[in-house]
Amino acid sequence: MSLKRAFLSIFTAFWVLSSVVGCTADSSGASESDVAIVIHGGAGTILKATMTDETEAAYRAKLEEALRAGHDVLSEGRSSLDAVIAAIQIMEDSPLFNSGVGAVFTSEGTHELDASIMDGATRNAGAVAGVKTVRSPIALARIVMEKSPHVMMSGSGAEAYAEENGLEMVENSFFYTERRFNALKRAQEREMSTLQVDAFDLPLSPGAEKIGTVGAVALDRQGNLAAGTSTGGMTNKKFGRVGDAPIIGAGTYADNRTAAISATGHGEYFIRGVIAHDIASRIDYAGEDLVTAANAVIMDKLGELGGTGGVISLDRSGAIAMPFNTEGMYRGYIDMDGNMVIQIYGPSGE
Amino acid sequence: MSLKRAFLSIFTAFWVLSSVVGCTADSSGASESDVAIVIHGGAGTILKATMTDETEAAYRAKLEEALRAGHDVLSEGRSSLDAVIAAIQIMEDSPLFNSGVGAVFTSEGTHELDASIMDGATRNAGAVAGVKTVRSPIALARIVMEKSPHVMMSGSGAEAYAEENGLEMVENSFFYTERRFNALKRAQEREMSTLQVDAFDLPLSPGAEKIGTVGAVALDRQGNLAAGTSTGGMTNKKFGRVGDAPIIGAGTYADNRTAAISATGHGEYFIRGVIAHDIASRIDYAGEDLVTAANAVIMDKLGELGGTGGVISLDRSGAIAMPFNTEGMYRGYIDMDGNMVIQIYGPSGE
Repeated sequence: MSLKRAFLSIFTAFWVLSSVVGCTADSSGASESDVAIVIHGGAGTILKATMTDETEAAYRAKLEEALRAGHDVLSEGRSSLDAVIAAIQIMEDSPLFNSGVGAVFTSEGTHELDASIMDGATRNAGAVAGVKTVRSPIALARIVMEKSPHVMMSGSGAEAYAEENGLEMVENSFFYTERRFNALKRAQEREMSTLQVDAFDLPLSPGAEKIGTVGAVALDRQGNLAAGTSTGGMTNKKFGRVGDAPIIGAGTYADNRTAAISATGHGEYFIRGVIAHDIASRIDYAGEDLVTAANAVIMDKLGELGGTGGVISLDRSGAIAMPFNTEGMYRGYIDMDGNMVIQIYGPSGE
Repeated sequence: MSLKRAFLSIFTAFWVLSSVVGCTADSSGASESDVAIVIHGGAGTILKATMTDETEAAYRAKLEEALRAGHDVLSEGRSSLDAVIAAIQIMEDSPLFNSGVGAVFTSEGTHELDASIMDGATRNAGAVAGVKTVRSPIALARIVMEKSPHVMMSGSGAEAYAEENGLEMVENSFFYTERRFNALKRAQEREMSTLQVDAFDLPLSPGAEKIGTVGAVALDRQGNLAAGTSTGGMTNKKFGRVGDAPIIGAGTYADNRTAAISATGHGEYFIRGVIAHDIASRIDYAGEDLVTAANAVIMDKLGELGGTGGVISLDRSGAIAMPFNTEGMYRGYIDMDGNMVIQIYGPSGE
């Protein structure tokens, strides 16, 4: 425990440096605007030492593509909800991330996908858990939010709703990737969940075994915030396990008065800590700014609970915080000044 | 909207009166102690005008039985978790409430049960959604919390876990009651959810159509808080709809540092408002006392969102708050002085 705390302290120190918006200037050359977007592609054991240049370049390119897709939507004057969907769908369709194509396998050799979305203007929300045949779970979460009287749907019922509403349906095998299948086999051989497997697997498949929940938060020209999260869950998951990604308040939260937040990490701890809503609550009730609140919740509270992971967050002023207490988190943003930043590693990397 | 606000004001005024602990003294004669328990059996359109004396007596007797079962556990020096389970299981087994036996029907004519529990000492939590064959969903939620690495399980996976752990399994028809079956038929004839049906059904089946999520919060001799909630959801529910009862932070939350909370009402609004955690956050970050925090969240925030329902809540000092913005809420407590209070109605009743 004291080792873990020491570890956290190092990352806290790092985070304070890295989270200052624009400290790593990789400017997109875009002009100043009143919109912003932040994305993540998962947090975990991501180390430069075990990442090839090619893999890193592939992640950077895909994160940039997702950021630009979301930012283009915002630049056209469309909503933060549209931008969140656009950015997340790029990542859902990419085998690099644990969402949509490239989702991890359950113990039964299937893919069960979870997603949620929240509109900061209305605090309306939508979520789906355990869907197997909907190409874009984040799109279904939005349909649940906007067209149904409900917030959350699960399993085959959610799929029936998707079909009724004309969403693209696919075979479960649509989400197959060899890499994730191999990860399942290794996990099953060791009969443990991927969260424990990672450390063993790193030499074989650099930094990407359990990692890859995706998320986006955005601020549009109308001053409205939105947040969304999409995931395949945990490799070798059993018993219909539901993580934090489809839980409003845990994995996703948005309220114009406070912030938009999307989380990634060991979901159980994010549920117990009601992490996304806890950040908003500190802003709301303790009067903290976004960076202070997000930092306190991830570096102190989540760590105290024993949880690992991170969040991306954004408020109406355009402030951005991306704290995490793992070795790395795939992340990036385009801020209100048009600066684009993409980062992967913790203290040792950029 | 202005009518609704006026309505809420009346209930706020009422609530301030009714929620003062012990104002209705129905003393159990127990001696002073350092334990307390609060329960609810659902909030909604509960009016004295449409309730028979017999029905009212049945509810009062069952609420008293549940309170005494939980309080006995606490008096023996056992944990608040044990007390929450004992109280909730009495109500799960009673056809009077929408949990366990007496659960409402889905659109497919089945029962799908949700429950969650949280330990205020460790902030560990367990939840199950959409289980059909587990006699006591709250017992399964506890097993998930204590024996699995997960917080939430759903559907057939959760049932498999229950079976592996030796919980009592039953046929889905075990939960059947004629009253709920008739409610489904009426709802389907009108093709609307029960939340809309209630107003129509009141003359036929006094005040009990959609009502009846059950919950308990307790404080044990060790000073530990716990909270639990169990429900059958919404009559005629479709698409694997999940309400707030199995969502940690929405329907259930417990933290020794703040309070134990269990909610009941129109679940979608409790999820969007992250209602249970919001009460805890106001205590934690705004420094409010329990009664002020619970009142503000239910009477102001929930109302602003357009939601209806209530919560029971308890803190380590033994303070109790039971605000609701509906006509009534089945509720009761035994406080630290051993006073037992059971209440059903809003302003017009006791």
